[in-house]
Amino acid sequence: MSVKTLDDLFYDTLCDIYYAERKILTGLTKMAQGAQSSELEQAFETHKAQTEQHIERLHLVFDMIERPAQSKPCAAIEGILKEGDEILAEYKDSPALDAGLLAAAQAVEHYEISRYGTLRSWADQLGLPEAVEILAQTLEEERDTDAQLTELALQAINVEAEEDPVE
Amino acid sequence: MSVKTLDDLFYDTLCDIYYAERKILTGLTKMAQGAQSSELEQAFETHKAQTEQHIERLHLVFDMIERPAQSKPCAAIEGILKEGDEILAEYKDSPALDAGLLAAAQAVEHYEISRYGTLRSWADQLGLPEAVEILAQTLEEERDTDAQLTELALQAINVEAEEDPVE
Repeated sequence: MSVKTLDDLFYDTLCDIYYAERKILTGLTKMAQGAQSSELEQAFETHKAQTEQHIERLHLVFDMIERPAQSKPCAAIEGILKEGDEILAEYKDSPALDAGLLAAAQAVEHYEISRYGTLRSWADQLGLPEAVEILAQTLEEERDTDAQLTELALQAINVEAEEDPVE
Repeated sequence: MSVKTLDDLFYDTLCDIYYAERKILTGLTKMAQGAQSSELEQAFETHKAQTEQHIERLHLVFDMIERPAQSKPCAAIEGILKEGDEILAEYKDSPALDAGLLAAAQAVEHYEISRYGTLRSWADQLGLPEAVEILAQTLEEERDTDAQLTELALQAINVEAEEDPVE
């Protein structure tokens, strides 16, 4: 058996985020349906459209390294999305539901930020400048989405979470 | 049954990160033992000491809100740490092992950054300025650790990952 190299690690991690992005599509659909405020629903829908683009970009990177686009089950994203499901179940009809969903989405964003940051560095180390460019573009978008979610939390969702639903 | 509020969400999420921090202690011990380079081992040991402090700080926040310090099983951290275990198993004796472990640790950091960022915002919304201060301190340390890991990756670990172990 040959020793695994950084090329293998790069490929395995691409397969991991490829699986994760497709799970995130399903997760965002559920979260958008569950969201109480139309602003948060819209934020999730926008992120879904972006996620589809990120999947397309991953195909480009798989092509660049001439390896097949394969999904590698990713325990991390399954656990992170499970927390979103728990919020949907435990905070149903609560004024704090959207605050919980928004936080769950930010945990997803941060997982992606960490993975794309790593993949970009490895692509650079492996001498793949075109892959660096593509991965950096997605990384930037994930960071922007996270910042937009923070903004939405501070301006609306956290405030609404404290309002008494009876009033 | 009473409607769950932002106070409940804040408490539930404190219990979630309290569970996560304790799991991270165990995870970091395993990763430190598995690391090939002494620099990475040292980085994990430093982060372990910091994690112990973060747990102490969480006790302070539980005291402030006069609720018991309880662990709430956190599927996210279990999934994230499982990926570290997979790296340890799949990349044993590979020159890319440390690069994989470092990336796994950054995924942990990003989960923590997301949770402490959220908790800090909610503490502010709930009018708990002392909790805000404590949570912000931990958040800052998690961000610093993530930045130090990126630095270590770029300066040493990613380069070593490409070296042929036979040479």
